[in-house]
Amino acid sequence: METASRHTEDLSLNTSIVTKLLVDFVRDETQNAGFQKGVIGLSGGVDSSVAVFIAVEALGPANVLGVIMPHKTSSPGSQRDAELVATQLGIKMEVVDISPMVDPMLKHSKIDDRVRAGNVMARQRMILLYDRSGRDKALVIGTSNKTETFLGYGTVFGDTACALNPLGDLYKTQVWQLAESLGVPKSIIGKPPSADLWEGQTDEGELGFSYERVDHLLYYMVDERRSESELHAMGFEDAFVHKVKSMIKTNHFKRRMPLVAKVSNRTMNIDFRYPRDWGI
Amino acid sequence: METASRHTEDLSLNTSIVTKLLVDFVRDETQNAGFQKGVIGLSGGVDSSVAVFIAVEALGPANVLGVIMPHKTSSPGSQRDAELVATQLGIKMEVVDISPMVDPMLKHSKIDDRVRAGNVMARQRMILLYDRSGRDKALVIGTSNKTETFLGYGTVFGDTACALNPLGDLYKTQVWQLAESLGVPKSIIGKPPSADLWEGQTDEGELGFSYERVDHLLYYMVDERRSESELHAMGFEDAFVHKVKSMIKTNHFKRRMPLVAKVSNRTMNIDFRYPRDWGI
Repeated sequence: METASRHTEDLSLNTSIVTKLLVDFVRDETQNAGFQKGVIGLSGGVDSSVAVFIAVEALGPANVLGVIMPHKTSSPGSQRDAELVATQLGIKMEVVDISPMVDPMLKHSKIDDRVRAGNVMARQRMILLYDRSGRDKALVIGTSNKTETFLGYGTVFGDTACALNPLGDLYKTQVWQLAESLGVPKSIIGKPPSADLWEGQTDEGELGFSYERVDHLLYYMVDERRSESELHAMGFEDAFVHKVKSMIKTNHFKRRMPLVAKVSNRTMNIDFRYPRDWGI
Repeated sequence: METASRHTEDLSLNTSIVTKLLVDFVRDETQNAGFQKGVIGLSGGVDSSVAVFIAVEALGPANVLGVIMPHKTSSPGSQRDAELVATQLGIKMEVVDISPMVDPMLKHSKIDDRVRAGNVMARQRMILLYDRSGRDKALVIGTSNKTETFLGYGTVFGDTACALNPLGDLYKTQVWQLAESLGVPKSIIGKPPSADLWEGQTDEGELGFSYERVDHLLYYMVDERRSESELHAMGFEDAFVHKVKSMIKTNHFKRRMPLVAKVSNRTMNIDFRYPRDWGI
């Protein structure tokens, strides 16, 4: 049986090394793609705040556009936190109320289910970010962390859509560590994580477990490939392990390209994948 | 120097074998994912018509929903052709005018550029299809062919977004062959291909070359891995070869998952990709 302090050590980051790695990643991959600029959706949450701090260090504040996209049902506090970050970093900022774009669809299709409505909002924000991407020749910088990516806690073709994602290999509890070291405002680090899709929503309430707990499990299950019996011996309840495994499996489609029927010698997503494949 | 007839032979399909393969693909992968139903956007063009014929053979007409999503700038003929196919196959059909969902964004963001507007429309259609996918527990069946996929002639997170794509490994000229053999209405097979994003738009006009010509080049370049000197000897102009290669390269980002900064032992899109990776 391992102790809680052992758990915490395993997820602890060397924040200065990781920050340098992520900054280099954003700078190098932006240049490799032939771009100088980035565009990023700012929700006022800790993930998009950390991502924009990294982006500004990589590209400079003049090359980063932050787009704040509240819906009329969003918390006003979220918008204030997003504006606080944009102002602190001195980046360009655009605030777009998505209600006039989202509500005609909700009304037409009689969408009152909040998960369906949340997916429409997440995808409408993608449309705006990708429009700015094309308009400004700026890459969309993603903000999904490793916890939500593995659990599938995100909208495919919505908040998961991006060109580059500096946070996709960091668990939520690691994003918090980075936020502290980067100087993200305390009000953002301290508040309960929420997709802000309805009043009072919190990630942990909706998921049914804490990030602290699931991050430890994911670390041992994914990174260390521990077996179920090892996880059991470490103190993780079987039901929790099975629930998380099932979420990883059910949502795998969000982490890969569409399936294509293979008919020919060389097929996209299967055996035509790398630049070397086409001799350049 | 090879002859035109050699060219045509290389792209000719055994339509009954390919149809069976595609039908099995849609049926098997739908079941593998735990679904019985499919949802598909019908444009009235040949690709979505062939895809829905395949889907109906795989899943049965009662399990396929066709969604027709005209914008007020779309050609009325396109909608008529889409309805013709849905009626002929006896599937459920939903017609949604996307103008009230698209126009507030075009107006707010002062989008008068037709490429930007076209991207907004393609992505708005994705939102509708994915909403129906969640509502009806139906997989989104894609309709992008190999020619447009390799050339990048499509909107990322728009018309390229799907769960399964039966046509992604068939060149446009091969889709036409399949359309003939499946009994797709002649009016659909005979009309010039168009994304129908503005009055008078045709794919071939916009691309600057014919599908016939580019499909032959892509076949030799991609499937047969011929060198530039071989392509030259076959009669393809160097400028045309370079233009097509450049389109393939520039649009490669549309054919892969977002880049993620690797920080840990196991990273999505890099070394965590397959079901066997998580021991199920």
